[in-house]
Amino acid sequence: MTTAEQMPAIILVEPQMGENIGAAARAMLNFGLTEMRIVNPRDGWPNERAVAMASRADEVLDNARLFSSVEEAIADLKKVYATTARPRDMIKHVATPKGAAQELRSLSAAGEKAGILFGKESWGLSSEHVTLADTIITVPLNPDFSSINLGQAVLLVAYEWFQSEDDTADMVIRNSERLANKEELAHLFNRIEGELDARGYFEPIMARKPVILRNMRNMFQRFGLMESDIRAFQGIVKGLCLPRRGEQDKD
Amino acid sequence: MTTAEQMPAIILVEPQMGENIGAAARAMLNFGLTEMRIVNPRDGWPNERAVAMASRADEVLDNARLFSSVEEAIADLKKVYATTARPRDMIKHVATPKGAAQELRSLSAAGEKAGILFGKESWGLSSEHVTLADTIITVPLNPDFSSINLGQAVLLVAYEWFQSEDDTADMVIRNSERLANKEELAHLFNRIEGELDARGYFEPIMARKPVILRNMRNMFQRFGLMESDIRAFQGIVKGLCLPRRGEQDKD
Repeated sequence: MTTAEQMPAIILVEPQMGENIGAAARAMLNFGLTEMRIVNPRDGWPNERAVAMASRADEVLDNARLFSSVEEAIADLKKVYATTARPRDMIKHVATPKGAAQELRSLSAAGEKAGILFGKESWGLSSEHVTLADTIITVPLNPDFSSINLGQAVLLVAYEWFQSEDDTADMVIRNSERLANKEELAHLFNRIEGELDARGYFEPIMARKPVILRNMRNMFQRFGLMESDIRAFQGIVKGLCLPRRGEQDKD
Repeated sequence: MTTAEQMPAIILVEPQMGENIGAAARAMLNFGLTEMRIVNPRDGWPNERAVAMASRADEVLDNARLFSSVEEAIADLKKVYATTARPRDMIKHVATPKGAAQELRSLSAAGEKAGILFGKESWGLSSEHVTLADTIITVPLNPDFSSINLGQAVLLVAYEWFQSEDDTADMVIRNSERLANKEELAHLFNRIEGELDARGYFEPIMARKPVILRNMRNMFQRFGLMESDIRAFQGIVKGLCLPRRGEQDKD
């Protein structure tokens, strides 16, 4: 039996309609998921329409946690998935709900907390938010009619989670090290960005700075960094930032 | 490619709310199913609310066929499935949506037309109607919260139909970029090592230098670097090796 702490969190980013938050809560509970996180709901929180729609799944809403940024909502997570229907111009692993569910079971079995981002109804997740994820989940859909609503997207992902309960035999075996969490990853990014800024690296290419940083974040996300990798990179950054011996002598 | 004639029909039996008929039409089209049959809809036919909810899936509604009994609606079918959440006091084959989808694909390939019955929102299919089916489909659900609505039930069955088309769907997709070759990787290592050496980074930890370098190589190997990642790292190394702005001014 998987405990609630080990289950993936469903993270609704800037959801617009309370009805859809309620439908997401129902879909979650239908398939045994109970941890909802909500980032900046348009109509505030709590939301009466969400409760009305959730029906007996209001316990999911009662326990939902509110965040003011995606970064905060994922800070404690080891692996983050982003659901998106549109192709994105970035290099990322892409999984189906079924493939992701199998990974989520493995993570859960290893005690590594994961979460799945769902974007707002009108336009899904922003590229910045997708960038924060390790893997994209795309539901295979009829390419001529590929719009599904928030509640349905949560339903399909939660359904595959429930389905995959018995498929954990083929687990990916890791060694005893733990994956870096998103906060550790953010510290590393911020340090590299800060050091590059302090050296004027971006000045000749200022217009491209946001894209360069986004690509860099995507790249690091993709590597599946362990906690020891973060320490190794912190060491490399520290070392590269030392003055060259010749320059030191000049001082 | 499966033609419409070979696809299973979705048969709504005495549906009550137009919204749910529209949602079913959308769910069908999302997963490439286009043949809807309707038995005695409570609010008559056509139904404006169904059309409003169906949005661009109204073509499914336009082509829906109306019947006055389940017997007539299934008369031309070779195999009939009945979706039901409640256990029934009858001996029947029971399949999951996934198992049923695989059977439906086989039937479709053999040119044997099949159909799936969905009951009314309030109470599902009557036992008389379930009796007319060959096999029961039951969605695996959290036993403590097992109510799903008509649109969701159609969505899950249609989803599994679509999934079963191609079992190779669970792949990791990258874009068209190529993996870095070992020479590019070696250049990157050597540059990082050389820059760290030039800064005296290893001097206080000289005994551990070989182990640190080996771990670093292992780490980079594990990442599956793309050619563009090598360029990104070369940029980061270049940037971090620039003198800090304050130090430059001192020269």
